[in-house]
Parts: sequence; C-alpha cells; structure tokens
Amino acid sequence: MMTMEEFYATGRRTVIGSLTFTAEDIVRFARDFDPQPFHLDAEEARHSLFGGLCASGWHTSAGWMQCFVRFWKDEQRRLAAEGLQAPRLGPSPGFRDLKWLKPVYAGDIVTYAVTFLESRTLASRPGWRINTILCEGENQHGEAVIRFESKVIEFV
Amino acid sequence: MMTMEEFYATGRRTVIGSLTFTAEDIVRFARDFDPQPFHLDAEEARHSLFGGLCASGWHTSAGWMQCFVRFWKDEQRRLAAEGLQAPRLGPSPGFRDLKWLKPVYAGDIVTYAVTFLESRTLASRPGWRINTILCEGENQHGEAVIRFESKVIEFV
Repeated sequence: MMTMEEFYATGRRTVIGSLTFTAEDIVRFARDFDPQPFHLDAEEARHSLFGGLCASGWHTSAGWMQCFVRFWKDEQRRLAAEGLQAPRLGPSPGFRDLKWLKPVYAGDIVTYAVTFLESRTLASRPGWRINTILCEGENQHGEAVIRFESKVIEFV
Repeated sequence: MMTMEEFYATGRRTVIGSLTFTAEDIVRFARDFDPQPFHLDAEEARHSLFGGLCASGWHTSAGWMQCFVRFWKDEQRRLAAEGLQAPRLGPSPGFRDLKWLKPVYAGDIVTYAVTFLESRTLASRPGWRINTILCEGENQHGEAVIRFESKVIEFV
C-alpha cells in the first residue's frame, strides 16, 4: 500500500470533476439549508447584491465533497486494476480558510480540483498520518469560486 | 438602524436553534453530497471507525446555516415589533478553522450557537463592515461537535 505522499506529487493539481448548478438544484439545497431570497427566487435575486439566482456557499462547498468521493472511488478502482492498493483515507478533522470568491449562478459549471500539499505523522496516534490538501473550484470562465485547505487522516 | 456591534455584546453566546439528525436526513444528504459507507448504511457504519451511522460533516455545517437563517428572520421580526430595524447583513466571504470535533450520530440533537466576536470597517468599501462570528454546535450530551469562525458583511 502506498501513502498519499508517495502517490501524489506535492503541488500537483488534479481535477476531480465538474458539477452544473441548475436553478432547480440551487433552490432545492437552499430550501433545506439556506433559505435566503437570492438562493430561492430568480426575480428577488435579480434585485439583490448578487444580481441573479446563485447557490448557497454551503452547496458549493458540499459540491467539492461530492466530486471528491466520486473521484476517490475511481482512483481506488484504477489502482486496483493495476494491482495497487489506494491509500486508506479516514475522516477529516476539519479545514481552514474557506473562501467563497465569486457567486455560483444558476447554470454555472464548477470544476473542482485537489492539490496535495503536505503529510505528517501524528505523534499521538501511531499509524495515522494527517494530510493537508488544497481544495478549489472554478467556474466555466476559469474564475475561482471557492478555495479552502482541508485535513484528511490517513491510516498507514 | 443599529449595527451588529451596537446590538450584540461581544463574547455573548446566543443559541440559534436545534436540529435532530435523523437517519433518514443523514442518508439523504449523504446520497447527494458525501456517499461514503458510514454516512449511508447503519450496518457498514457499525464496522467503521465511527462505530455507527453519522452525518457528513458538510451536513452538520449546513445545519448551522439552516438554524442561523431561521434565527435571523425571527430576530428581524422581533426587532420590527419593537420599532427597531435589524442590522442589514450581506453575504459571507468565507470562514476559517472549521473543526468537526465529534461525529454526529443518527438521532443526535445538535444545538447551534453564535457568538459575536468583532466588527471592523472595510477601507476599500465605504458603508461596509465585516463582522467575525464564532459558530458552534453541541450534541445532547453537551459535547462540542462543530466549531468555526465566520465572516459576515454588514451594510451600515
């Protein structure tokens, strides 16, 4: 079994997938978690600071995870087909400095990426490593819309 | 119109609401955004690191927003009834140091709170302030499950 550090070159950016934010998806998420006018109604959104219906930032964030889980399952399959075992990832203790850089409007396509930044052992937990990854999303115009640094536990 | 700073005492913690994380809600969110076994299936979750079905961290985070939006609408109504105008909040540019401190298991009740930390003007944007708030959630046993610091724009 290879570790994340052996596997992913530090600083190499990997696209993990794209999501189209339809008006329907935006409104459905917002109804549950962020029912503000500019996430619920195109007409009200037009008169808001945003100027148009846009996704809740929590939706844009969760979209990163949606793409990452799919990407990681594909990686596991791809490596298995080569006779390799993917690094064993555990939960995330959290992340830092999440920035919503631009609104994500109805119809926008966000392409998410991950960049492996660093890995370190945990003195308190033998056999655990903690990896830092940079998580990003950009829209179809190449504009960054979201960015955060996440931590992921790895069992070695 | 009062500002957040005039209105909310620095460091005062305000409970903004509670959410029960049912197995059904946990699985529904996870199917869309975080389809990992320990968020999807009670039996598989039992054999995972978590030991039981638990919510995606992105679900726990979005739950904070869900409670905050409801709380803030109530605040606006409460103040209007007193002839006062609530501070005009805008979007959030992001947050930092989000920590998922404990898993949120099926059946757990998370009580969310907000604490006003500080407010400052934005030299680049006259009439805008940027507020820092501490966002927290604890389970029914009084254990902290989530914590992050958020920024919120205010128009004055």
